[in-house]
Amino acid sequence: MKFIDLKNKAGSHSPSIALIRRLLPDLKINVDACFLSNPYATDLFYDYFQKDLIDSNKLREVLEYYPSQNKNIAEFLSKVIEISPENILIGNGAIQLIEELLVHHLKGKVGIPIPTFSSYYEILPEERVHLIPLKKDNDYKFICSDLIKDINENDIKIIVLINPNNPTGDFIETNDIEKILNNCPGLNHIILDESFIHFNNDGVSKIETYFDSNSNLEKVIGIKSLSKDFGIAGIRAGYAILNKSLRNNILNQGLLWNSNGIAEYFFELYSRKEFIVKYENVLKRYLEDKNDFLNKISTIQGIKVIPSCANFFLVEILSSKKSDDIVEKMLFDHGVYVRTCSDKIGLEGEYLRIASRSKTENDQIFDALKKSI
Amino acid sequence: MKFIDLKNKAGSHSPSIALIRRLLPDLKINVDACFLSNPYATDLFYDYFQKDLIDSNKLREVLEYYPSQNKNIAEFLSKVIEISPENILIGNGAIQLIEELLVHHLKGKVGIPIPTFSSYYEILPEERVHLIPLKKDNDYKFICSDLIKDINENDIKIIVLINPNNPTGDFIETNDIEKILNNCPGLNHIILDESFIHFNNDGVSKIETYFDSNSNLEKVIGIKSLSKDFGIAGIRAGYAILNKSLRNNILNQGLLWNSNGIAEYFFELYSRKEFIVKYENVLKRYLEDKNDFLNKISTIQGIKVIPSCANFFLVEILSSKKSDDIVEKMLFDHGVYVRTCSDKIGLEGEYLRIASRSKTENDQIFDALKKSI
Repeated sequence: MKFIDLKNKAGSHSPSIALIRRLLPDLKINVDACFLSNPYATDLFYDYFQKDLIDSNKLREVLEYYPSQNKNIAEFLSKVIEISPENILIGNGAIQLIEELLVHHLKGKVGIPIPTFSSYYEILPEERVHLIPLKKDNDYKFICSDLIKDINENDIKIIVLINPNNPTGDFIETNDIEKILNNCPGLNHIILDESFIHFNNDGVSKIETYFDSNSNLEKVIGIKSLSKDFGIAGIRAGYAILNKSLRNNILNQGLLWNSNGIAEYFFELYSRKEFIVKYENVLKRYLEDKNDFLNKISTIQGIKVIPSCANFFLVEILSSKKSDDIVEKMLFDHGVYVRTCSDKIGLEGEYLRIASRSKTENDQIFDALKKSI
Repeated sequence: MKFIDLKNKAGSHSPSIALIRRLLPDLKINVDACFLSNPYATDLFYDYFQKDLIDSNKLREVLEYYPSQNKNIAEFLSKVIEISPENILIGNGAIQLIEELLVHHLKGKVGIPIPTFSSYYEILPEERVHLIPLKKDNDYKFICSDLIKDINENDIKIIVLINPNNPTGDFIETNDIEKILNNCPGLNHIILDESFIHFNNDGVSKIETYFDSNSNLEKVIGIKSLSKDFGIAGIRAGYAILNKSLRNNILNQGLLWNSNGIAEYFFELYSRKEFIVKYENVLKRYLEDKNDFLNKISTIQGIKVIPSCANFFLVEILSSKKSDDIVEKMLFDHGVYVRTCSDKIGLEGEYLRIASRSKTENDQIFDALKKSI
């Protein structure tokens, strides 16, 4: 079986590790460098989970009983992000909130700069999607004036900005977002998906800052996955920050009981100050490793590593090789799985997206990449 | 603090155990007889969970990685219920599927016999809801000819039947459902919510039987919570059985990644034959206890226990006492929490809903009830 066969089996998305393991049980996969999370944070979370739930025999109860309602769980989070619980909507992963908002509640044409996370346009009917190609010769960076022009010329009602963007890692500054808000009179909403914001080394801009003024609170909708920064994708935890009336409209039609017991435990844990202190330490360590990794892979000949404010790197292959072939070689010869970008629209050329993992894993990724290019 | 204060704090729903514990930390609650689940099944599930995930150190991975997509998890369930995965939609609890179907995908007026599970009408705008009061003098049983008349006279497009019904415990037979299908030409869908079907002693009718013929498959939508029979409400697992085109329409707009890692583990466990054999044993034991409990509480003077095919009993208070006062007395004097029905529309009189729990707990419920009536 070749990588192309795995891709065909996987359907519209890149083959998951679980699928590869099922189809190729004898293949040893040492590193999953498709997976965009901080593994040190998973360790930290699991230490608490072990102590709080397993060792104290409380886990059975967490699995047996109904979790609290959305608004009650929002109260835990409110303490951390210092936003009123009335402006918080908890999601069964960020994806649930993206779907709920874009498909069912917000009307009009949606502007989506590409390349980006494909779910944003895949869930929408074609007539509601307006793709905005970012330019290769500018490393696919957001250009604020271009975005404003595009929004105004195409009757865009909602613009989606993943910040930092996936897979480019580009970061749009607060003052550029202000410019869009001030210069696009027809725009109803900016969806600001800050799922990778913790990995921005400067880390200054946070969704929360946009909610200082009431006018922004009407227009900006923050989306945040917690799977990446806390390394807990299996739990399904995310949230949105949005204006009260939109939140209440959504809760009147559902999402009252959309968290599971483990996600509720996570939100309670996240509200503890001592946990946050420890989390910031493992984040710091992860970012140091990420920077070392960037320096190391940048020395490899035959590729261009695009600067990134996230925890992954978009890597262009400068030779005539295909990204799928390099992914195949890295996986089958070295047990290192990186993300091909051959299915990503909006990219010109052959690209890989490589996640920074633990220090040991990064060394393995580096070796495999160097030998496969 | 009195029970009425707890109710006021709880908002639209009966106060949860978690809320009572938070507001009254010193109150000892021995039995939660509001909670409609089989505790022996929770024990069984947790035994497997301990062995498969905790003892083998696999739990960290289940919490760290993304779970599989909806359609992949449907394949596990398909083996158990013998329905094609293309007719299965996995839910983050049954409630997610109820919301998704009724609010976003099915059009027209929804007929809802009352008393019933209130979420069915609370999530819908008033103009789409047509309540069908069941008759007290007939123990709030479904009367098929009345339902057919009501559906045809009121342009009902969707009828919701919880089977057995909550809180009445009444069970509508397969041939009555066939009659509705055959005699309501304007009806588009029957939603058959079989969340309590495992607790019906006869247990013959299953959603799956309606999917033998293609015509039923077009009209009948099965909804199934797994929280009750398996005692795993904290995990959030449910499913719908529905026709392919409706399923595909829903999946095109979302719900692709709506399960968490523990729910995925449960569906895999459920597909193992040895687990099902053990589950059937704990179900049998639970039903025996339920029947003993029914016989016992039926001897109490001053109440009427309505016959039930589910794992709970609707109990009418024949004295002049209020149900809220009895709930308060049972909770504060005996640490036994039963569900008041004072907020349930469609009931005439004062009612409690009492869940059958473990044998030991049932004895405590019996004592508390006898002393409080």
